Amino acid sequence: MDATLSSGVVRAGRQAREQFHDARGYGDPDGEGVRFAPVEAAHLLYRDDLGAVDDMGFRAFLASSTCPDLHFLVYKDLRDRGFYLSPTGVDWVGDHGTADLVVYPRGKGPWDDEVAYRVRVVSERATVSAADLGDVVLAVVDEESEITYLETDRPDATGSTAHDAPAAVPGSLLDDRVLVWDPPADLYERGFYGQPLDRDGETVETLQLSLVEAAYLVRHGTLTLGTDGDDGQAVLERGRTVEGDRFDRRLRVYTVLREAGVVPKTGYKFGADFRTYADVESVSELSHSELLVRVVPAGHTFAPRDLALDVRLAGGVRKRMVFALVGENIEWLSAERLTP
Amino acid sequence: MDATLSSGVVRAGRQAREQFHDARGYGDPDGEGVRFAPVEAAHLLYRDDLGAVDDMGFRAFLASSTCPDLHFLVYKDLRDRGFYLSPTGVDWVGDHGTADLVVYPRGKGPWDDEVAYRVRVVSERATVSAADLGDVVLAVVDEESEITYLETDRPDATGSTAHDAPAAVPGSLLDDRVLVWDPPADLYERGFYGQPLDRDGETVETLQLSLVEAAYLVRHGTLTLGTDGDDGQAVLERGRTVEGDRFDRRLRVYTVLREAGVVPKTGYKFGADFRTYADVESVSELSHSELLVRVVPAGHTFAPRDLALDVRLAGGVRKRMVFALVGENIEWLSAERLTP
Repeated sequence: MDATLSSGVVRAGRQAREQFHDARGYGDPDGEGVRFAPVEAAHLLYRDDLGAVDDMGFRAFLASSTCPDLHFLVYKDLRDRGFYLSPTGVDWVGDHGTADLVVYPRGKGPWDDEVAYRVRVVSERATVSAADLGDVVLAVVDEESEITYLETDRPDATGSTAHDAPAAVPGSLLDDRVLVWDPPADLYERGFYGQPLDRDGETVETLQLSLVEAAYLVRHGTLTLGTDGDDGQAVLERGRTVEGDRFDRRLRVYTVLREAGVVPKTGYKFGADFRTYADVESVSELSHSELLVRVVPAGHTFAPRDLALDVRLAGGVRKRMVFALVGENIEWLSAERLTP
Repeated sequence: MDATLSSGVVRAGRQAREQFHDARGYGDPDGEGVRFAPVEAAHLLYRDDLGAVDDMGFRAFLASSTCPDLHFLVYKDLRDRGFYLSPTGVDWVGDHGTADLVVYPRGKGPWDDEVAYRVRVVSERATVSAADLGDVVLAVVDEESEITYLETDRPDATGSTAHDAPAAVPGSLLDDRVLVWDPPADLYERGFYGQPLDRDGETVETLQLSLVEAAYLVRHGTLTLGTDGDDGQAVLERGRTVEGDRFDRRLRVYTVLREAGVVPKTGYKFGADFRTYADVESVSELSHSELLVRVVPAGHTFAPRDLALDVRLAGGVRKRMVFALVGENIEWLSAERLTP
């Protein structure tokens, strides 16, 4: 059975419509016949269901500029997994934002009104803007044509940690941290601020605060540093010396999380800015931290390679990878591995 | 027992020499007495072994500018682990390159002639130049004062893979890969070039080569692409379109590894450029890949946060993390987690 190509659309007759559209969800009815997107036609050629499109067999058709090879690979993979799906970018498929492929639930097809996944196809070496993510599945094709699916979402970050911090606790500002001598016990044990200098002692004699924690606590009247000028300004300047603008972004995310009842602690060991605890009652009964948070500017573009690395690492330690996009507001973007 | 501070050196008398130097490896003999680096004096103050240095107790001494707080934290941690060690940067300790602390083997001290580790202390937010790594242990202090030790080395990358590739196999250059139709069986099975389009088939009908593999094979006369001009140039241009200068760097590393008998395959899933197999006899009897390789320019500076992420991920999949530093030559730098 053969077909013709015109203006980027492949057309075939009634028999093709019955066999490929009606029975297996390819293409769209076109009068008595059927029309296919190039990727669908390539798949039918690959399967030997179609013999030729304008005299081109599968090899010639795929090597022509009509059919993007990355899209073909993902289309084929999802068909192999038992899905019916439609490429976007043709008249008969509605608007699905930045998605390249619309995947229907197993057992459903283009004639139903349900969508399982909206899939955007990217090379591992492309870059993807944060603004384009959140309601799409990324299908990342690596240079050996392996495909990784990453589901993106726009979650909320909220918790139930409540702690009334004391007022005016004195501390000393060092190069890269603040030390609090003989701190009120609750500051660490209930508020989960800082890290004891000596982990073996029964009482915390010296508490080390990170600069982000110190900046937050100074702003809330909990901490005083006895600097010559404004304590808050002194910590901010120290933080900016150490990590520039990034310190301000991290402090904003730290503040928003604390105000939502979530405790952020450093995520360094996981390559992230923070790991978070949603429901801290006391440090001695701490549960597993739930999120890894990476702080990025709102206009950030992701390299799929780095995104995959973050998601893999978070999965390995049973946490969810979340990006804090810091612009006028803070928006949350999560990414996790998906097996369709 | 008290001590005095002068020009960055802390001095104490004969009793201090006997108790702290002779018995426990702090400082250096100084006439009948002893002299300490500030970090050593801080540790003695912290332990209440010394009462004061120029009227300063531990808190005042640590908060003064005499003693770097990161160095103190790492010094304390290594002492807690049972090591004797000396800070560099004082007259009586020799030259140890970029190291901040010289750690002696357990049971040995500054009076012996053996070194267990040369340790460089860095904040997680500092940057570290690749040129400074390779014979030093990085002690990375995170903002909550947890310490991660990363051992760096300059390994070789060699293997025993031998495969005589056939000549002039035809292929088609697509957007981001090369397809070889009905390839010679050995190209994949023995040479481990490419990835079959269909993984289920008994014979490989279509082999997908990455652009790096294709560029290498064109240069070695194995592959022809039937382009209008120079095949090699055509692949190079395609590669540079996709990833700029980085393509050239990756091709150089790919070539050096292949010539050393090592097979590089994509390391995308691990966030790396390549994973490598040192001894491939046939793909159907493939062993575990040994290295993860990340390709960087020779002048690269590492963020300890990213370095820790790479090392952690490599450890999680039982591979060794290696950086290929690409300049005039290619140098190898490895990093792995160390528990002193």
